[in-house]
Amino acid sequence: MIFDIEVKISLKDGMLNPEAKTIENSLSLLGYNVNNTKTLNIITFDMEGEDRETIRSEVDDMCQKLLCNPVIHNYKITIIPRNSACGDC
Amino acid sequence: MIFDIEVKISLKDGMLNPEAKTIENSLSLLGYNVNNTKTLNIITFDMEGEDRETIRSEVDDMCQKLLCNPVIHNYKITIIPRNSACGDC
Repeated sequence: MIFDIEVKISLKDGMLNPEAKTIENSLSLLGYNVNNTKTLNIITFDMEGEDRETIRSEVDDMCQKLLCNPVIHNYKITIIPRNSACGDC
Repeated sequence: MIFDIEVKISLKDGMLNPEAKTIENSLSLLGYNVNNTKTLNIITFDMEGEDRETIRSEVDDMCQKLLCNPVIHNYKITIIPRNSACGDC
């Protein structure tokens, strides 16, 4: 069975985000006044597996080992079985 | 009135994505077999404005001028009025 996976990676609260700060400053220089700018990364892929729990455990391992830095990042994993209309975490 | 804005930026179909390719290769080296890896960026911020249409036009300008490269990126703007339970594009 094929599962579509989405990993949403964000900085933990309180971490400095220079990218967001730069965007906010640049928009301000262009005359746009925006606040609370944040940036997130999303990684999507598909993989084959038996069931949702096995997949979740594997993707969690991937996040811990490679995709995220657990010290500074929060991550949220969404798993949707292919050919399914709706999926939850 | 304050609006919460989300801009989702992805590479257009057919564009090479070296970041995604690197992630896929690295996961493969770790023993995880994944396919169709893609990466997306999300920028969120809030801004004050009169109505949704004015905000949409301003955010579209920001995307064209600074946030995206319209030659290689697709972008999707989501605008949600603060204190509203649901928002659409």
